[in-house]
Amino acid sequence: MYKVSLLGAGSWGTALAILLANNGHEVTLWSALQDEVKMLTENREHMERLPGIKLPDNILVTADAEKACCDMDLIVFSVASPYVRQTARNVKKYIKDGQIIVNVAKGIEDNTLLTLTEIIKEEIPLANIAVLSGPSHAEEVSKRIPTTVVIGAETQKTAYFAQDIFMSEVFRVYTSPDMIGIELGGSLKNVIALAAGIVDGLDYGDNTKAALMTRGIAEMSRLGVAMGGKMETFAGLSGVGDLIVTCTSKHSRNRNAGYLIGKGYTMQEAMDEVKQVVEGVYSAKAALALARKYNITMPIVEQINLVLFENKSAKTAVYELLLRDKSREYSALEWKE
Amino acid sequence: MYKVSLLGAGSWGTALAILLANNGHEVTLWSALQDEVKMLTENREHMERLPGIKLPDNILVTADAEKACCDMDLIVFSVASPYVRQTARNVKKYIKDGQIIVNVAKGIEDNTLLTLTEIIKEEIPLANIAVLSGPSHAEEVSKRIPTTVVIGAETQKTAYFAQDIFMSEVFRVYTSPDMIGIELGGSLKNVIALAAGIVDGLDYGDNTKAALMTRGIAEMSRLGVAMGGKMETFAGLSGVGDLIVTCTSKHSRNRNAGYLIGKGYTMQEAMDEVKQVVEGVYSAKAALALARKYNITMPIVEQINLVLFENKSAKTAVYELLLRDKSREYSALEWKE
Repeated sequence: MYKVSLLGAGSWGTALAILLANNGHEVTLWSALQDEVKMLTENREHMERLPGIKLPDNILVTADAEKACCDMDLIVFSVASPYVRQTARNVKKYIKDGQIIVNVAKGIEDNTLLTLTEIIKEEIPLANIAVLSGPSHAEEVSKRIPTTVVIGAETQKTAYFAQDIFMSEVFRVYTSPDMIGIELGGSLKNVIALAAGIVDGLDYGDNTKAALMTRGIAEMSRLGVAMGGKMETFAGLSGVGDLIVTCTSKHSRNRNAGYLIGKGYTMQEAMDEVKQVVEGVYSAKAALALARKYNITMPIVEQINLVLFENKSAKTAVYELLLRDKSREYSALEWKE
Repeated sequence: MYKVSLLGAGSWGTALAILLANNGHEVTLWSALQDEVKMLTENREHMERLPGIKLPDNILVTADAEKACCDMDLIVFSVASPYVRQTARNVKKYIKDGQIIVNVAKGIEDNTLLTLTEIIKEEIPLANIAVLSGPSHAEEVSKRIPTTVVIGAETQKTAYFAQDIFMSEVFRVYTSPDMIGIELGGSLKNVIALAAGIVDGLDYGDNTKAALMTRGIAEMSRLGVAMGGKMETFAGLSGVGDLIVTCTSKHSRNRNAGYLIGKGYTMQEAMDEVKQVVEGVYSAKAALALARKYNITMPIVEQINLVLFENKSAKTAVYELLLRDKSREYSALEWKE
């Protein structure tokens, strides 16, 4: 039984707070949004994001960052990617040296091209940062639907400690040393999910979407390995596993935003309709910049950027992706003759 | 423009015959089933398997194996896996030395543990055998929905020749030298799709299914690499791509049979309901035998065998799969400390 807090009470932060409370921990759930704190306190439920799911009694909801950060065994960063740096800056003064922080958000910062744990590390250098990722829609986790994730950390000791805190009968946690691979998988798949949604919106079939997803995982892996991630990670829960759930689930905001773009919405109209933060839109630009920096071919990322930011027609973009020249599937495999 | 024939006029053989005829080739479509030949000849449509899709005029339908095998530039083997050996035996006498044969069915022979191209090679040793696989439901290919596949062959020359014959604007063909990897991917994914269908039938969520599929591709790859396949192939169209489409599409017989088993049907009841051949049921036993032969851990394959052949409850099997001990995700990745 530990003291655990979550910074950020969106759907994922709230779902994980419920999980951790059910695991018997003493849980503090912090939000910067006064309305959210009021709603969670008065109704003991996140009416907008996880309607019908009540918070257990052992969750304290607060707007007080000091209370949420002091004297904690583990702090979860569950704010959406655009707010990670500012939140880290704001809470730094309350964080003790060596504090274990587990980031559960996904994204790459546009101007610095840093992952979210790298941002937290930069802002709070003495903290001990880990990451949790995998195919895990918050709605399902809040309903105790069996879910499997991976925790990445710099040391085995940290990973095992966090694993023990999160692990339950319905929430299975693996551990891995490949933090960069885990974070890149979680971020880049949102860009591919936008593309998969567009394919759905254009009324292509399952064959087309599977081909796009396969290429998507290939280009994610190419970039990730160039940046120091491990191929095994992209073949695992936080790579292909998360890609599958994000591209196929009705819960996925990125896929749903892409679907609307395929139906003719502009990026802004699609984001307004989906309402929550569509991480893939933010990560798309960063992914393109990384592809150029590391000199990696990422055709899907390129086309998505043209659609999102340069008004290219979604239909033309998908058509061009599908009609690339015939070639060998894997340039690394050699023929005997 | 070439002379091409297809042996087997089920949904896949018929869909590919239509594709090849649309590509301008002179196409012969053979079936051993008199009723099927009659239906296809009289209605110019496979009323049961591809209703509403008419055969182009340049397809000759025949029950005459000699006519279908003599003087062909390329022969497609499109009979379901249980009939491959007997069909190869029956037509051998009409096949010229060096004849290019492209197998498009998926499966592993139960008693010999051979793949389908290995069976054809054994029966017709002087033929030049290739394989075509990937995420490609016949229903969608027959409707010209964009589809991407891979052709594996022993020589680049053969692969490129076959690629040119199949390639069209809506049917993109890659080539690869990794025949064994392609065939194992195509066969083993049917077993995983049964398990994915069971997860759906038991009303688990997208998180659960994505976790199972991720583990599925991992155990497929472990076995495939032990048998000489390439990891890249399992990460490609005929591996994860085909796995995705088979586990998620409403067109998939294997997934649908699993769904019914999850709902409480017996294996036989599920097969009767789905009507067509459920390859995964045949491949499950072979996959288990291969796992033992190569000493590979395949928990999903093991549990599916228990459910299919030893009356284990599907619910218990999935529960046990989900609740395996916590562990590192990739035993190959090492911690720094």
